[in-house]
Amino acid sequence: MPSVAELNEKERESLLADHPDWELAREGKAIKRTFQFGDFSEAWGFMSRVALLADAQDHHPEWFNVYAKVEITLTTHDAGTSGGLSQRDATMARAIDGLL
Amino acid sequence: MPSVAELNEKERESLLADHPDWELAREGKAIKRTFQFGDFSEAWGFMSRVALLADAQDHHPEWFNVYAKVEITLTTHDAGTSGGLSQRDATMARAIDGLL
Repeated sequence: MPSVAELNEKERESLLADHPDWELAREGKAIKRTFQFGDFSEAWGFMSRVALLADAQDHHPEWFNVYAKVEITLTTHDAGTSGGLSQRDATMARAIDGLL
Repeated sequence: MPSVAELNEKERESLLADHPDWELAREGKAIKRTFQFGDFSEAWGFMSRVALLADAQDHHPEWFNVYAKVEITLTTHDAGTSGGLSQRDATMARAIDGLL
């Protein structure tokens, strides 16, 4: 049995409405957002702040970086039967958006 | 005309022989290595050191992280006709390996 509740349809829609820069990925089991900065230094500064959030919330992103671009995918491995979106992802998306 | 010389066959073989933990990717236009740490904190500490190397060498990795795993791909966008391996990648791989 999963230890974290998966968001239901309504909660998922609410998450996307509150965070319009994020889109569903992996058939609704994750959300994703791409960030474009001016250079690597700016991108890295942002990633460092996200890393602090991740450790504080004990919820870590799957992310990709090349130079000034950062792609973040949020999903909860313990949610649903094979991972899914949970309130943890909504909390993390809100915190990340708050950095910008 | 590309501004950075692409490694020739012999130089590429030499790079792989010197750095056996790296493998060719993207049809020989890149090298890739996966690093597994004990937790996110260790992975992030390593990434922070790689970020310092990247800025010092003005040569930035394409990399992916999820929790304790880090995947680094090195390629030179200015090499060859559509990107390729250059001496910059060899220098960066050596520096990254030197962190471990």
